[in-house]
Amino acid sequence: MSIRQIKQPGEYAYTYSPFHEPIAQVKPGEKIAIHTLDAFENKLNGPEDLCTEKCFFPFLNPQTGPVFVQGAEPGDTLVVKIHEITPARDYAVTALIPNFGGLTSTQYTRTLNAPIKEETRLLPIRDGFIEFNEKIKLPYEPFVGTIGVAPQIEAINSLTPGNWGGNMDCVDTCPGNEVHFPVFVEGAYFFVGDAHATQGDGEITGVACEIPATVTVTFDLMKGKKIAWPRIVSEKYIMTTGSTRPVDDALRIASCELIEWMVCDYGFDRFEAYHLLGQAVKYRVGNMVDPNYTVVAKMSKEYLN
Amino acid sequence: MSIRQIKQPGEYAYTYSPFHEPIAQVKPGEKIAIHTLDAFENKLNGPEDLCTEKCFFPFLNPQTGPVFVQGAEPGDTLVVKIHEITPARDYAVTALIPNFGGLTSTQYTRTLNAPIKEETRLLPIRDGFIEFNEKIKLPYEPFVGTIGVAPQIEAINSLTPGNWGGNMDCVDTCPGNEVHFPVFVEGAYFFVGDAHATQGDGEITGVACEIPATVTVTFDLMKGKKIAWPRIVSEKYIMTTGSTRPVDDALRIASCELIEWMVCDYGFDRFEAYHLLGQAVKYRVGNMVDPNYTVVAKMSKEYLN
Amino acid sequence: MSIRQIKQPGEYAYTYSPFHEPIAQVKPGEKIAIHTLDAFENKLNGPEDLCTEKCFFPFLNPQTGPVFVQGAEPGDTLVVKIHEITPARDYAVTALIPNFGGLTSTQYTRTLNAPIKEETRLLPIRDGFIEFNEKIKLPYEPFVGTIGVAPQIEAINSLTPGNWGGNMDCVDTCPGNEVHFPVFVEGAYFFVGDAHATQGDGEITGVACEIPATVTVTFDLMKGKKIAWPRIVSEKYIMTTGSTRPVDDALRIASCELIEWMVCDYGFDRFEAYHLLGQAVKYRVGNMVDPNYTVVAKMSKEYLN
Amino acid sequence: MSIRQIKQPGEYAYTYSPFHEPIAQVKPGEKIAIHTLDAFENKLNGPEDLCTEKCFFPFLNPQTGPVFVQGAEPGDTLVVKIHEITPARDYAVTALIPNFGGLTSTQYTRTLNAPIKEETRLLPIRDGFIEFNEKIKLPYEPFVGTIGVAPQIEAINSLTPGNWGGNMDCVDTCPGNEVHFPVFVEGAYFFVGDAHATQGDGEITGVACEIPATVTVTFDLMKGKKIAWPRIVSEKYIMTTGSTRPVDDALRIASCELIEWMVCDYGFDRFEAYHLLGQAVKYRVGNMVDPNYTVVAKMSKEYLN
Repeated sequence: MSIRQIKQPGEYAYTYSPFHEPIAQVKPGEKIAIHTLDAFENKLNGPEDLCTEKCFFPFLNPQTGPVFVQGAEPGDTLVVKIHEITPARDYAVTALIPNFGGLTSTQYTRTLNAPIKEETRLLPIRDGFIEFNEKIKLPYEPFVGTIGVAPQIEAINSLTPGNWGGNMDCVDTCPGNEVHFPVFVEGAYFFVGDAHATQGDGEITGVACEIPATVTVTFDLMKGKKIAWPRIVSEKYIMTTGSTRPVDDALRIASCELIEWMVCDYGFDRFEAYHLLGQAVKYRVGNMVDPNYTVVAKMSKEYLN
Repeated sequence: MSIRQIKQPGEYAYTYSPFHEPIAQVKPGEKIAIHTLDAFENKLNGPEDLCTEKCFFPFLNPQTGPVFVQGAEPGDTLVVKIHEITPARDYAVTALIPNFGGLTSTQYTRTLNAPIKEETRLLPIRDGFIEFNEKIKLPYEPFVGTIGVAPQIEAINSLTPGNWGGNMDCVDTCPGNEVHFPVFVEGAYFFVGDAHATQGDGEITGVACEIPATVTVTFDLMKGKKIAWPRIVSEKYIMTTGSTRPVDDALRIASCELIEWMVCDYGFDRFEAYHLLGQAVKYRVGNMVDPNYTVVAKMSKEYLN
Repeated sequence: MSIRQIKQPGEYAYTYSPFHEPIAQVKPGEKIAIHTLDAFENKLNGPEDLCTEKCFFPFLNPQTGPVFVQGAEPGDTLVVKIHEITPARDYAVTALIPNFGGLTSTQYTRTLNAPIKEETRLLPIRDGFIEFNEKIKLPYEPFVGTIGVAPQIEAINSLTPGNWGGNMDCVDTCPGNEVHFPVFVEGAYFFVGDAHATQGDGEITGVACEIPATVTVTFDLMKGKKIAWPRIVSEKYIMTTGSTRPVDDALRIASCELIEWMVCDYGFDRFEAYHLLGQAVKYRVGNMVDPNYTVVAKMSKEYLN
Repeated sequence: MSIRQIKQPGEYAYTYSPFHEPIAQVKPGEKIAIHTLDAFENKLNGPEDLCTEKCFFPFLNPQTGPVFVQGAEPGDTLVVKIHEITPARDYAVTALIPNFGGLTSTQYTRTLNAPIKEETRLLPIRDGFIEFNEKIKLPYEPFVGTIGVAPQIEAINSLTPGNWGGNMDCVDTCPGNEVHFPVFVEGAYFFVGDAHATQGDGEITGVACEIPATVTVTFDLMKGKKIAWPRIVSEKYIMTTGSTRPVDDALRIASCELIEWMVCDYGFDRFEAYHLLGQAVKYRVGNMVDPNYTVVAKMSKEYLN
C-alpha cells in the first residue's frame, strides 16, 4: 500500500499559527509522508551560498503545514508517532552565521564585538554517516528540529520553540519515538520541518546538519487528555520539554512537567517524584541558540512501574 | 475643536498582529483619544473579584486597535506623541496573582513551592494621588503599560513585549514623551492598552495600579527611517528599550541600541559612545514579570549636542 | 582637631577575608580618613598604560584594610557613615579592557568573537566636573565602588561583591549616606577602595572614573542587630543590595531584603510590603560586569512612617 | 602492598584555600586512600535528623585536605586518577532542604513563597544498588561531588565550584577517570569530599545519595602545562567543566574550554572545532543548585585522532 504523500501546495509556513489554511486533512491512524525543506529553504548548495545573502528573516525555517487532524479538539493531546526520516538529497548543509549561535554575540546576548566569520559547508551523507571532514564521520541520526501545533491565538515564527512545540531542536523527536502536543485549536494544525541528519547537544553553532526530508508519521489522539507542554516517549524514557530563556528556567519547566506526569499517570507523590529526579533524571539541552532555549528532562521507564 | 474618539467596536485585541481588521484610519498630525480597558478587562471591581476566577488566559490585557496610520510603510518609524492619560474611573486596581510576579514561582521560573495568596485591591484615585492605604499616598503618574505596532508576520499575545513594543511596562511611555516604533506592515497597526496610574520599577508584583483610560495621542512618521527597537524621547533623555529574558540581555539590547542611536544621529564613534555609557547611562527596569522582561537605557540630552 | 589618617602600611589587600592582619584599631564614633588607591593600583597614568600590560589578576582593585572596629562582634551590624571622598589627584582614569565589561564577551559570558580593543583614558577633574571630552562634562559625584567587611571563613577577591559588600559599584555608597554591613568576625575587618569620581548605572564598560582618594568615615555599631546583606540609608531612601548572577536574581535578593526590612523595622505585613514595592520600588543596577552583579532596591522614607 | 591511608587529623576543611595546613605530603605516582565524610558530616542518620537542625552553614560539606602534592608548582596541571570509591557505610542519605535545590525558591533565586518541606531519607546500599524505595533500585555509580585544589589567594567555601574545581557534582569525577586541575599554589593543595553513591543530572533536589567514603587516587603532574578550568578524561571522552550562573554561561565556559583543548592538543582550527561541537558535543549539567552551577562539555575521542 502506498503511503499518502503530503507536499506544501504553495508558500511554506513561517509561523506556527491557526491563521494558515490547512494543506491536508488526515485521520488518526493514517500513515502519511510529509515532505519538508531544510531550514535554509534548500537555498544553500555550496560554500559560496551564504545564509545572510540568500535568506531573509523572518522567511527562514520553512514549515510544511498545517495538517488538520480530524477529531482533534482543544483540550486533547495529539500523539505523533515518527516512523522514518529520509533525506531528500545526499548531503547535509551546516553553517556559521554572524550573530547567531551559542558561542557568539547574538541579537539577544548582544555585544559590541565584531561578528565571527560566516561560512557554509556541505557534508556528504553516505553509508549511514555524515562526512564531517576527511577524517571524521558522524553517524546519521536524523530527527526533526521543528515540530508542533498551532498556538491558540498567536502566530509564532518557526524559529522559536514554546509550549506548542516549534523549533525545539531535540534529538529525541526522532524515528521510533512518540511526540505529544497539547491541542489548542480544532484540528490541531500540525506543522513540521527543519530535519537534521545529526546534531550536537544545544545546537551550539546555531545550525545542525540540515536536510530536506520525507518524514513519515501517524497521528493519534488522547481525547480529553490535557497536557501543558510537549512530551516525548521512547522505548526507554518518558521525556518532557521546557522552552524559555535562560537554560535554567527551561530546565525548571521540563522538570516540573516531568514531576506532574509522574504524579498524574504513574501514581507518584509529588515530592517522592522530586526525590527521584534528584537521583535519576537526565537532562539534554535541545538548543541554546533560538529565541527560546529548549531542555528535555528524561526519566527511565524502569522506575515507573 | 473636539478630539476624535476611538473606541473598540467589537472584541478587544489580545494579540499584536497584522491579522486584525483596523478599527480606524488616522492621519499623521491628527489628535485622537483612544479608550482603553484595564489589564483585567475592567472585571475586578472589589476584593472579592479574583483574577483567576474572572479572567482567562490568553484573554487578558485587552488592547484597543489596530489603528491604521495612513502613509506608514515598512521601514518607516512611527512616532507616537502621548498628550494625556485620563483615568476612566476613580480607582485603580492592583492584585497579587498566584504564580505571577517577580518574587514568586512563575510558569517560567517554575518551582514546587506552594503559590502565594491571591488578592485584589481597589485604590482610590483622588486629588492627584493614589491612596495605597490610610497612610500612604502615591502620586498619580500615569503611563501606558502596553503600546506598539504589529509585527511583520507574527501575532504575539498582548502580555509579551518585544521589538514591536507591546507589554513593556515602561513608566516613560507617559504624557509629554514621544515613543518611536519600527513600522513592519503598511499602516503600522497601532495598539494601546493597559494604562497604569503609577507603578514601581520592574512591576515586581506583576500588577501596577491598573486603570481604564482615555489616551490622547498624535502620530507622526519618519519616512524611510529604520529603527530596530522601540525608542522614547523625553524633554531630558533619549531612551531605548530591549525586551527578552534574563534582565541582563534586555539591558544589553537597550544599551547597544542606545549606542547605535548615538552613532547614527549624534555623530559619536561607537566606542566613544560606549565609554560615555560607562560613565553616564541610566537604566530602568520596565518589568521583570512578563514572558519577556523590558529594560530602558537612558542618555541625557545634555551630552548629545 | 585633625582627623586620624589611615594608610596601608604594606601590601594592599586583594581579598576580603579574616586572614589579613588589621592595619588599625578604630573606636565607634571616631572620624578617620582612609587613603585608597584606584582600581588599577594607580598604575595607569596615560593612554599608553594598558591594564593588560600593567596589572595582573588577581592583583587588581587593591583595598585598604582591614580596619578592626572595636566592639564589633558576629551578629552585630556595622554602620559606616561616609562623610567625604576627596580625590588624590586631578584626573580620573577610565578604560576599555578586552573580555571585561557588560557589552562584550567576558570570561563568564564567553564567546568566540575577537575581543574589543583596549584603551586607557585620563579624564581631568576640574571645578566639580570630570571632563569626558572637549564637549562633555560630567558632574563630580564620588562614591566608593568597593566597601565591606570580612566574610566568616572565606577570602573573596576584591573584584567580587556579595553579602559582605565588596565590589558592589553602587553610586549610593557616597558621602552623606550610611552603609550597613553584617558583622561576621570579631572587629568586623572593614575594607575600602576603588573610589569613583562618577559612574553610569551598571558600570557597563567595566570601568568607572577611577580615582585614588581619601575617604572619611565614622563607624557605629548596632549591637545584636543581625542583617543578611548590606544596606544603605540616604536622606530620602532606605536601600538594600543583592549580588549574584544574573541581574534577575540580584534584584530578587535586594527586593526580598527590602521587604524583610520593612517588616522588621517599619511594621509592614510581608505582602503589604510586596504590594508597595509593586507600586513604588526603585531599582538601580550597581554593576553588571563583576563576577557577581549588584542591584540596589530603594524605598522612599515617605512611605515608611 | 598496603595503600597509604589519609584521614583528616583535626577539623575538616570548609574552604578550598591555601590557608590550611597540609595534612599529608604525597608524591606523584603514589596510590593513596583518602577518607571522606558525607556532605552532612555524617550527622544525618535517620529521618528525624534534619539538616537545618544538625548542620550549620558554612560548616557543611567537610573536605579532607589539603594534601600537598610534591613537585606541583603554579602553572602545572595536576592529574588525579580516581581508582575506587568505597562507601564507608551501608546506606546513603538524601534530603529535601528548605530554600535549597533547583525546583524551589533559594537564597539566590529568592521568592516570597513558603519553603517546601524538609525531609531526610536513608537509602540502603545493597548488592550494587541503592534502594530508593521498595520498588525502585538505582545502580551504585559512585563519584566525588567535590574535588579540587586551592585557589591562588582566595578561600572559597566548599559548597561552591569554580576554576579550582570544588563542588562541581559531576558524575564523571568517578572511578576510572582522570581529573585535571590547574595548579595555583606550590603543592597544589588537593581537597576531596562529598562522595555520592549516585545522582541525577543537575543534582536537582540539591542533595545526591550522600556517603562517607574511601577514595583511592594517584596524582600525576603535567609540568609547565597550564590549563584554565578543570578537565576530565574518560575512556571515551575528553571533557571540560565550566562553573558560574546561569547554566548558559557555565555551558559557554565549558564549550570554549573544549574548543581550546581541541586546538592546543589535537590540532584543530578554532572554528573547525566549533563546527564539530555543533554536530557532536554532549553536555551534562553537574548541578544547578550550588552558588555556581556546573556544566560538563564532552567530545568523543573517536573524533580527535
